[in-house]
Amino acid sequence: MTHPATPDWLRRMGVELPILQAPMAGSQGSVLAIAVSEAGGLGALPAAMLSPQALRDELAAITTATHRPYNVNFFAHTPPQPDPQREAAWREALVPYFAEFRLDPAAIPPGAGRRPFDAEAAEVLEAFRPPVVSFHFGLPEPALLARVKGWGARVLSSATTVAEARWLEAHGADVVIAQGLEAGGHRGMFLTDDLHSQLGSLALLAQVRDAVKIPVVAAGGIADARGVAAVLALGASAAQVGTAYLCCPEATTSAVHRRALLTSPEAPTALTRLFSGRPARGLVNRLMRELGPLSPLAPAFPLAGTALAPLRARAEAAGSCDFSPLWSGQNRSGCSERPAAELTRFLAGRMAD
Amino acid sequence: MTHPATPDWLRRMGVELPILQAPMAGSQGSVLAIAVSEAGGLGALPAAMLSPQALRDELAAITTATHRPYNVNFFAHTPPQPDPQREAAWREALVPYFAEFRLDPAAIPPGAGRRPFDAEAAEVLEAFRPPVVSFHFGLPEPALLARVKGWGARVLSSATTVAEARWLEAHGADVVIAQGLEAGGHRGMFLTDDLHSQLGSLALLAQVRDAVKIPVVAAGGIADARGVAAVLALGASAAQVGTAYLCCPEATTSAVHRRALLTSPEAPTALTRLFSGRPARGLVNRLMRELGPLSPLAPAFPLAGTALAPLRARAEAAGSCDFSPLWSGQNRSGCSERPAAELTRFLAGRMAD
Repeated sequence: MTHPATPDWLRRMGVELPILQAPMAGSQGSVLAIAVSEAGGLGALPAAMLSPQALRDELAAITTATHRPYNVNFFAHTPPQPDPQREAAWREALVPYFAEFRLDPAAIPPGAGRRPFDAEAAEVLEAFRPPVVSFHFGLPEPALLARVKGWGARVLSSATTVAEARWLEAHGADVVIAQGLEAGGHRGMFLTDDLHSQLGSLALLAQVRDAVKIPVVAAGGIADARGVAAVLALGASAAQVGTAYLCCPEATTSAVHRRALLTSPEAPTALTRLFSGRPARGLVNRLMRELGPLSPLAPAFPLAGTALAPLRARAEAAGSCDFSPLWSGQNRSGCSERPAAELTRFLAGRMAD
Repeated sequence: MTHPATPDWLRRMGVELPILQAPMAGSQGSVLAIAVSEAGGLGALPAAMLSPQALRDELAAITTATHRPYNVNFFAHTPPQPDPQREAAWREALVPYFAEFRLDPAAIPPGAGRRPFDAEAAEVLEAFRPPVVSFHFGLPEPALLARVKGWGARVLSSATTVAEARWLEAHGADVVIAQGLEAGGHRGMFLTDDLHSQLGSLALLAQVRDAVKIPVVAAGGIADARGVAAVLALGASAAQVGTAYLCCPEATTSAVHRRALLTSPEAPTALTRLFSGRPARGLVNRLMRELGPLSPLAPAFPLAGTALAPLRARAEAAGSCDFSPLWSGQNRSGCSERPAAELTRFLAGRMAD
C-alpha cells in the first residue's frame, strides 16, 4: 500500500515508499537494488565501475527479478588529462607502504576504475529503458541527457550547494538530491571544489527547497523513520539513505568495511581524496591519518585509487582496513545485518508490515 | 498560549514556545533577550564578555523589563597558560596588516576578552536567581555548578559529539544542546579538538537523542518553522536559533556584520580559530583567506582576538569586514530586519498571532 508521504512523481511510476536507496559503487549491485525495489522503495544500481557487459548483466538481473521501478546511477565527471609527474609523485609517496607489504610498486596495474556516462552506456541502458537514471558530479552532455530522457526516464542528480541545485534544474534534472555534508561516499560537488561551500543536511535542504521548483530528495545523516519524517517536515519530497544499507546481507560491502561500520558507531569520519582523487566521506583509517585525508599528493579523480589497489588487497586479506575506503556517513545508527526489505520498511516507519 | 510542542521542562517555568534564542556574545545583550522572552521563547544573555558590574546591570535590565524566564550563558573553558613566544609569533604574523593601516603593533592592548564562569559571576547571578543558566565548552567545576543548581536553575550545556552529550548528562546538565556543524559561532567542543568528530545537525541529533535520557535541544541550521518542525520530528525537545536573530533591530550586531549576513545568502562559511583561538563558524573574509581559517599561528583561546582589535576597529570604521569575526551559521535564510518577537513567533509557526 502506498505510504501517504510518497510524492506523486514516485507514485506515478509505482514506488510505494518515500525511500530511495543510495547507489554505492563497490558496495552493492543488483541484489540490493532488487530487494529495496521489491520492498516498495526505489532501489539503485551503481554503474560507475561496471563495464558495458557487466552493466547489461546487472540490468538483466534486475528486470528478470522485479517489475518494480529502479534507478541506475552514473558518474558524470570529465576524465582528467593524464599527468605522469603527479602520478609518479603519488606512487612515490606510497613506496614505504609497498615496502612494508613486500609489494612491487612497478606491478601497479594501469587503469582508472571509474568511467563517466557515455554513448556506450546509453546504448546498453536504452535496451532496458530504466524509469530512473541518476547522476553524480553534474549531468552528462546535452545529447546524452536527451537520449536518456527520450525513453521517459526521470533524471536525478546531486547538489551540494544551492547554486548546484539551480544549475541542475536549469539543465534538465527532474529531481535534485540535496546531498548534505553528513553523507557518506563521494561529494557530488561539480561547480566548486571549495569544501567550505559544503552544507549540513538541515541547512542545505532548507535552502535548496526554496531555490528550485523541482522535487528535492534529502540525503545525508538519515538512518531511521524519524530522520525520514524530519526531512519530509523540512520540505523534502523523499529521503535517500546509503550508509544504513551497507551492512545488509544483500550488499557486497567487504568484511573489513562491515566490521568497521558495526563496531565503531562513534568513530570519526572525514572527507578524503586519497582513494579516488575527489573528496568522499569515510571512516578515518591509517592511510588517512598518515598522509592526511585531503593530501594534494593524490592525483585527479579517478586516478588516485589504482595505485592503492595492491596495498588494499594485501591488507584486506590480512583482515586490515588500513588501506581501504571505508565509506560511511556521519550517522551509522541504522547499520545492522537486517535484510534490505526490512530496513526499507523500518525507514518508512512500517515495521508492523 | 502555550504551543502544543513546548516540552514540560520549559512549560513548567512558563516558556510558551519550543524556541531558545542562542546566546551570541558580542552581537547582543539584554534587549534581544527581553524581546524573545516577552514573545514566549527563551531569551538568552551572553555573559562571557561582561564584567561583573556589566553582568549585574544587564540582569537588572532583564528583570525590570520582564517577568518571563530567561537564560544566562557563560563559557566554561580553562584559561590557557600564557605563552609569550606564541603570542609574539601571532603579532609578528599580523605586522603587515598593522603596516597597511599605519597602526603601531606595540599599541596592542593587553587582556583576554573572554573569562570563564567563576565565583564572582556566581555571586552576581545569585542575587537574580536566573531560571536557566547555560554553558559552552563543558561545565564549571562541581562546587560552582552546585551553587547554580542551588537556587533551582536549569543547567544547559552544548554537546558536539555523542561522547560530550553523555559526559554532560553524567556531570549534572539538565538539558543538552546538540550543536550541529551548521551552527554559527564557537563550537562547544570540550572533550576533543578533532574537527572530524563534528557532526551535521541531523546526524548529531539522531545519535544524541538515543544516547541520553535528558531532554535534547537541537541547534545548527534551523531558520524557520519547518526547520523547527524537522528537529522536533527527529526527537528534539526544542530548537535553539542564533543566526536568524543577528539582524533583528534588538541585536547589537555591527553594521559590517549585518551587511555581510544580509547580502550574501550563499557565501561560504568556515570554522576559524583566528578570532579567538577556538574553532568558530563565520563567513569567510580576507583574514581567513590570507592566513588560513585554522592557522596554528593563532594563540590559545581566548588570546587570539586581542591582537586583532585595533585592526578590526580601523577596518570597520572604513566599512570593511576584512578583520571582523562574521559569525554565521550555514543557513542565513532567516536573517532579516524583523523584530525579534516577530521572528520568535515565525520560528514557532505562529505568524498569525
